[in-house]
Amino acid sequence: MSKLPIVTIGLCGLGTVGQGVWKHLARSRADFAARLGVRVEVRRVAVRHRRKARGVAVPASRLTDDPLAVATDPGIAIVCELMGGTGLARRVTLAALARGKIVISANKALICAHGAEIFAMAEKHGGRFLFEASVAGGIPIIKVLREGLVANRFPRIYGILNGTCNYILTQMSARQRSYASVLAEAKALGYAEADEALDVQGWDTAHKACVLAWLAHGVWVRPDQMIVEGIERITPADFHNAAVLGYGIKLLAVIARDFSGNELSVGVHPTLLPTRSVIANVGGVFNGISVTGDVVGPTLYIGRGAGQDATASAVIGDIADALALLRLDRGAGIPPAAARAAGGDAGAAPSLAPARHIRSRYYLRLTVRDQPGVLARVASIMARRHISIASVIQHAAEQRDAASLVLTTHESNEHAMDGALRTLARLRSVLEAPLLLRIGDFDA
Amino acid sequence: MSKLPIVTIGLCGLGTVGQGVWKHLARSRADFAARLGVRVEVRRVAVRHRRKARGVAVPASRLTDDPLAVATDPGIAIVCELMGGTGLARRVTLAALARGKIVISANKALICAHGAEIFAMAEKHGGRFLFEASVAGGIPIIKVLREGLVANRFPRIYGILNGTCNYILTQMSARQRSYASVLAEAKALGYAEADEALDVQGWDTAHKACVLAWLAHGVWVRPDQMIVEGIERITPADFHNAAVLGYGIKLLAVIARDFSGNELSVGVHPTLLPTRSVIANVGGVFNGISVTGDVVGPTLYIGRGAGQDATASAVIGDIADALALLRLDRGAGIPPAAARAAGGDAGAAPSLAPARHIRSRYYLRLTVRDQPGVLARVASIMARRHISIASVIQHAAEQRDAASLVLTTHESNEHAMDGALRTLARLRSVLEAPLLLRIGDFDA
Repeated sequence: MSKLPIVTIGLCGLGTVGQGVWKHLARSRADFAARLGVRVEVRRVAVRHRRKARGVAVPASRLTDDPLAVATDPGIAIVCELMGGTGLARRVTLAALARGKIVISANKALICAHGAEIFAMAEKHGGRFLFEASVAGGIPIIKVLREGLVANRFPRIYGILNGTCNYILTQMSARQRSYASVLAEAKALGYAEADEALDVQGWDTAHKACVLAWLAHGVWVRPDQMIVEGIERITPADFHNAAVLGYGIKLLAVIARDFSGNELSVGVHPTLLPTRSVIANVGGVFNGISVTGDVVGPTLYIGRGAGQDATASAVIGDIADALALLRLDRGAGIPPAAARAAGGDAGAAPSLAPARHIRSRYYLRLTVRDQPGVLARVASIMARRHISIASVIQHAAEQRDAASLVLTTHESNEHAMDGALRTLARLRSVLEAPLLLRIGDFDA
Repeated sequence: MSKLPIVTIGLCGLGTVGQGVWKHLARSRADFAARLGVRVEVRRVAVRHRRKARGVAVPASRLTDDPLAVATDPGIAIVCELMGGTGLARRVTLAALARGKIVISANKALICAHGAEIFAMAEKHGGRFLFEASVAGGIPIIKVLREGLVANRFPRIYGILNGTCNYILTQMSARQRSYASVLAEAKALGYAEADEALDVQGWDTAHKACVLAWLAHGVWVRPDQMIVEGIERITPADFHNAAVLGYGIKLLAVIARDFSGNELSVGVHPTLLPTRSVIANVGGVFNGISVTGDVVGPTLYIGRGAGQDATASAVIGDIADALALLRLDRGAGIPPAAARAAGGDAGAAPSLAPARHIRSRYYLRLTVRDQPGVLARVASIMARRHISIASVIQHAAEQRDAASLVLTTHESNEHAMDGALRTLARLRSVLEAPLLLRIGDFDA
């Protein structure tokens, strides 16, 4: 075994994920030797503080506090960027790709912000950028979309991509508890970051949706081009109302492509899903993704979306692919589908769907003055926008003299709902900003 | 585009799957040109009857009735064996591999019977054998196990791998109908073959379990080394009893490895699954597979398991991998895990678990004389084998003066249950061969 060629790896970042990769890679070594005929060696590890105590014993001689030195080291073939952030991480990534190295990344924020630049750099210098760990942790969804389902176009991909939000929603639903109290508990348990904004406001999910949309449709959709709504305003009453109507509530990314009009929409929003649907029953920190291919039909993938081990599993999967590439020469494997939009018979790259083409049923919760005529006023505002009401639930609100008015609509569109919402918010009898959730009867 | 290098494909077999591949490959062509820089051409198609009318228009000049001529044609790089069977299909496969070609196969029966020979032939002559379509149709489970989850060892893989059985069980459960009447309907609808034995007796599932066990553990387990039980003896009453106990019934393949004792068990049998578990809710012709990795934890995959389009999606996924291989040279990608058993730190290849090490809870349905003392006699037979009874349901059976006695047990093992069953079957008060089902509290 000592005669096998050695492939050298540099780790940039030795936090939760980096430590997981270090730990699990030790075990995969014999497997890689047997199956791929190479020996892997983690030659350098860049950390912020060299003397910090850690859960893994990396020899001090391999530690450095300069990730750029790792990225540019001619003795290193594969660079794992596990630092996070979009500043130094971008420089490290580009520097390694400019030297024709393989970069492995779990950094969805970076890909979302600088993906076009990163893939252009890889293309130009014969480097490769692998990113299985960036979306849905241990579920190999990138490989599934790029390789396994290559025969398909994807009219709809939707799913739960953020374990923190799913943990919070699952706990709120199961135990009728408030958002604030579950969030506090999630922080104490380490399921939520000290600064939870990126997760609960939907931005982390949006970054992942951006990556999936690019893989499936070959275009970069920025979060500011998406509807991005978080989970902060959802209450136990919303879960109760949804349950009465036969639904659960999940924070979903929804990537929908209309191939006839060649329009793409990417959105992140809390969504009512039929209680019996599989995704509605994906609980806790798990992720779940539904991928509908036009050849294969609906497929579903469920697994841990984050955490040390699940993410390490994905990074090591990419390391195996990198080893297979290096065993030959640069360039094997199926490239990401950036070319799909231009090259496939789908024709030109899709344009982003305007709001009036993004259709859904809606759930609308209004806190209103408990007085006669309010429902009539609300209904007439909806009617003016041609929004047809499917059901109404009214009950006392927490405030004195207030009522909670929950409407569901038949299918309408984002433009009409947005207009109705603005008008409703201006009504004197509407006491709080209306809460709008989408209803995802995807399989109906 | 016409300047791109051409890769030539030969199809052996133009039945349901072959026609699907022909149809969908036409569309993938532009995608492959853009993403892989090659043009694919289906140069020859072997059929049994050249003049038969078909749903796809293959030019007569490309048709032949000699699949071996396709397999050995030096002008063809990729051979898709879509004929089925283990005789001619084996010769075609080996002939192509002996010439260093890439063979793509949907033929689980062939892999199960001759896998060792096939992979040895590929290894010897630099050919490659790809088989995504052999298990779980449109779900890219082969790629997931071999590549995406490469960092993992697999303590348990279980799932629904036969759409015909799942359709029958789903219908029996939903509509309280007998096996025979649902089977007749399934045949009329084309969901079951005219000769249903291979499906309903569990052999098709066993072939697929054999392929998955080899991928995950690197050893070939023949169906005659597995417990293989079918669905023919299940009645609507069993669904009712299971529901009372909180379970559904699915035909599962279960591949379990005990890494501490280094034992492997592979079984196919109807299994009670908790009503709320995801796999218990996979209905109709869908397949669903649970893969537990020791790094990633539990993951789940659901999709259409068979049919023209799902299988074509998998075959075309393999064609894309083949094109990526050919773009370079032979040998890219991660080889199947045959070496895993020998090379990984799991140490030596596992031995097959003896019956007394295969543990489960059990559901036992006995049709007994409706007379006092029968339960006591049954219970004492169980007690002698140290099998502890968890619950008893007794009700009138269809026959006169007979009762149906349904027992569930605490955890026991196959050896003890087999002994108890033999003794029970000999009792004069037991009127029919006992029906034994396993209980799969996998996630408990």
